[in-house]
Amino acid sequence: MIDLPNDLRLALLQCPSLPLDVPANLARLDAFAAQAAAAGAHLLVTPEMFLTGYNIGGPAAAVLAERPDGPRAQAVAAIARQHQIAIAFGHPEHDDVGAIFNAAQCIDAQGQMLARYRKTHLFGDLDRGMFSPGPGDEPLFSFHGWQLGLLICFDVEFPENTRRLALQGADLIVVPTANMEGFDFVAQHLVPTRAYENQLFVAYANFCGSEGDLVYNGLSCVAAPNGTGLVQAGRGAELLLADVTRAGLAAGRALNGHLALCRTPPQKL
Amino acid sequence: MIDLPNDLRLALLQCPSLPLDVPANLARLDAFAAQAAAAGAHLLVTPEMFLTGYNIGGPAAAVLAERPDGPRAQAVAAIARQHQIAIAFGHPEHDDVGAIFNAAQCIDAQGQMLARYRKTHLFGDLDRGMFSPGPGDEPLFSFHGWQLGLLICFDVEFPENTRRLALQGADLIVVPTANMEGFDFVAQHLVPTRAYENQLFVAYANFCGSEGDLVYNGLSCVAAPNGTGLVQAGRGAELLLADVTRAGLAAGRALNGHLALCRTPPQKL
Repeated sequence: MIDLPNDLRLALLQCPSLPLDVPANLARLDAFAAQAAAAGAHLLVTPEMFLTGYNIGGPAAAVLAERPDGPRAQAVAAIARQHQIAIAFGHPEHDDVGAIFNAAQCIDAQGQMLARYRKTHLFGDLDRGMFSPGPGDEPLFSFHGWQLGLLICFDVEFPENTRRLALQGADLIVVPTANMEGFDFVAQHLVPTRAYENQLFVAYANFCGSEGDLVYNGLSCVAAPNGTGLVQAGRGAELLLADVTRAGLAAGRALNGHLALCRTPPQKL
Repeated sequence: MIDLPNDLRLALLQCPSLPLDVPANLARLDAFAAQAAAAGAHLLVTPEMFLTGYNIGGPAAAVLAERPDGPRAQAVAAIARQHQIAIAFGHPEHDDVGAIFNAAQCIDAQGQMLARYRKTHLFGDLDRGMFSPGPGDEPLFSFHGWQLGLLICFDVEFPENTRRLALQGADLIVVPTANMEGFDFVAQHLVPTRAYENQLFVAYANFCGSEGDLVYNGLSCVAAPNGTGLVQAGRGAELLLADVTRAGLAAGRALNGHLALCRTPPQKL
């Protein structure tokens, strides 16, 4: 329950991927942003590569890639402004020399970009056939008095990545993902462990349904730092609401002190 | 199921702590070693500080501390030889200048010490009132063709510690522990995550029952690298048997490649 002015309500969009149809995805995003805002959410988190679909192959990813402030990102900013809700979303991004990245960004309710991130740990041939790995300049950004970090999918499975954000002061790590059948362990055990061992919240938003030869496993979740506050979706389409509170953060930090007691020196990617 | 000559059967002793009575603990160890050997186990793993009890306070820990090859360790070696089973056990250890450590060691079925380890991450006032932290010279040792590592209790909750052992080539990490009510998350989610994210097995042997003002939570377990092979005890006394197999190791390493794909450089404590 939100009971302080700077507690946050998150809305995680768990939905099928709709590949290659950006206008249709923007239309869906508009509808879900309206629904999330009506439910009192401050931030809507979408799955990995939501704007274009994930299982689209290298040529399509290159065609659909844009700069972080390209027209599709501007369309998301307009949706955020219209519904007065922040949006974290994934999309293919290109840089000045044509490299393509699996990217995510967070746009605030005024349409301003708060942070952007390029996936550092590519998953299998699928990712490697579409993307270059990001350089690991993991951003922290302020949102309603919270320190937020961004990771994408496979990145969160490496404890080093979440630890770096935690040591910089993250309170909540936002993770668009596209996780599949056979990997339920990640949402059921690993993501909650990231929250517990770092004394922070993790919001993990996944697709459901199938996309080409991929079957997504749903199970989007918000994991709490005390290990018992997991809010988790099922296998089907759902707009998952979860409150992350200052009280929950304090309780997790009172229960566990791993972050302060860790003796291994911090390290960069 | 063990089906290769170098597969291993583990026996994890989950029992109440019996504080301050080393002879009684050696007598129990003798009986459980016989039982484990009769069940075909290659290695018996006991909880943290099994020989003396854990919640005994600084003065008693100092009195009961010995060198790694002291008379109590020699008594364990005799039990190992008699029943032809390796034993991993915890005990308080002192060094040449009188510092006291929360230690564990592994003795093989011929009574030879394979490895010893001093807990590096002390848990709360309880540990800090008894022990100095170990230096972090985490040993790897060979056992029936497997590479094994040792950690103690709270150490395993830090992903850096298991990652170091994994990067050195560990196949199985053995963890005597004394975990308590309120921390079920560790055995249910965190320990399995350590196995999954490092593609190795973790054997986590805990007390049950109470010891002074502590109530232990049982849930000893052997977690597998594929995330689905968890063998877990309940809340009461139990000799938990679990097979760790080359096939299971290979399956986990085929499913997940975190260890090879991690981009963060290895680091020392």
